[in-house]
Amino acid sequence: MTKIIEIHEKILAENQIEAAALREQLSLSHTVLINVMASPGAGKTTLLERTIEGLRSRYRFAVVEADLDSTVDADKISALGIPAVQIETGGFCHVESFMTNAALGELDLPSLDVVFLENVGNLICPSQFDTGAHVSVAILSVPEGDDKPLKYPIMFRAVEAVVVNKMDYLAVTDFDVSAVRKRIAVLNEDAPVIPLSCRTGGGLDGWIEWIIGRIESVRSSFPEVS
Amino acid sequence: MTKIIEIHEKILAENQIEAAALREQLSLSHTVLINVMASPGAGKTTLLERTIEGLRSRYRFAVVEADLDSTVDADKISALGIPAVQIETGGFCHVESFMTNAALGELDLPSLDVVFLENVGNLICPSQFDTGAHVSVAILSVPEGDDKPLKYPIMFRAVEAVVVNKMDYLAVTDFDVSAVRKRIAVLNEDAPVIPLSCRTGGGLDGWIEWIIGRIESVRSSFPEVS
Repeated sequence: MTKIIEIHEKILAENQIEAAALREQLSLSHTVLINVMASPGAGKTTLLERTIEGLRSRYRFAVVEADLDSTVDADKISALGIPAVQIETGGFCHVESFMTNAALGELDLPSLDVVFLENVGNLICPSQFDTGAHVSVAILSVPEGDDKPLKYPIMFRAVEAVVVNKMDYLAVTDFDVSAVRKRIAVLNEDAPVIPLSCRTGGGLDGWIEWIIGRIESVRSSFPEVS
Repeated sequence: MTKIIEIHEKILAENQIEAAALREQLSLSHTVLINVMASPGAGKTTLLERTIEGLRSRYRFAVVEADLDSTVDADKISALGIPAVQIETGGFCHVESFMTNAALGELDLPSLDVVFLENVGNLICPSQFDTGAHVSVAILSVPEGDDKPLKYPIMFRAVEAVVVNKMDYLAVTDFDVSAVRKRIAVLNEDAPVIPLSCRTGGGLDGWIEWIIGRIESVRSSFPEVS
């Protein structure tokens, strides 16, 4: 066990250095990278589709899709006419910065304002690895249950905001939004909790407003073009 | 990357040896170990509650609960009056056989017919590690979407049966049960797909029948008591 932990810590430390270098490189090309994490089926791809539809007149987007071995999600993004790069992780359960780096190498960064990284569908491992992103968010979907912040605290501590998706399911569950807000506040007091439904569109305006604010805040930190 | 893969393969190989030894030990004490895997919120604990309620007059049960750092699930099982042992995995995203072994050390195996291992809520990593169980099953819940076998094929290959839970959500989704059956059949042609709703109880009889069959089949392979 000790040996496993030592190896794990070494991998984490190396990843952290690579991630910081990647973030620096992105900042130099004035591209904001946003890492989106969630359980399988929480609605990561759909939230990206809605966000891109809402903001494509404002920003030039691309998406990096991480998947074990399918291109289901990348195909959906490509259908929007947006550049999509697929990371096939094989058995890998999360994205590390060397993977992000390889994927971004296939994109023309200076021509992009915002790249979304759709992480592997997993509420655990992705939260432990810096991907090189400027911003990380998590999605929790109503059918997963309101106890998830209690059971996966590392994820809810690792992000800047939590989207609660599939609010259209609320009537057929005992999901308690105020309980989720309290549980997340204990872990991460500054993280806004943004309830919405990608299916009905309800609440999407709150998310769009928040993400524009974060994108603009990151952009304002970029070095001036000389 | 190569180094990571080498370490990973060594861990897998050592785990496999320990898992086989554990399975042998369980067989000697005539205890069937069943590993239940799924995404967060797919209904693992609830399926175990329903199964134990339905079969507690027939078998003596215990449950090993793996969770990052809460006892939410173990508390639910204890409330049934069933022995529950908690593995707090910390950041660990899956159960390996050394963890199962430690947890089983807290149970009186000869007095137990069936132990359920509720694995960490994760559709990826748990599928790659033999826990020492005799039987492994996966749960896919309707709100997660019918594309999950395409995106997490390793899990759907690693199990003997797939429970499709939350069938009471079917009317409010575009989930296609026949598509799921076909996608799973491609990966794992012998695995039955068992649709049910833990909430309404619909379909539970099919699961109960299947699991009794598997428990009895494993028991028939146990060595005679001398």
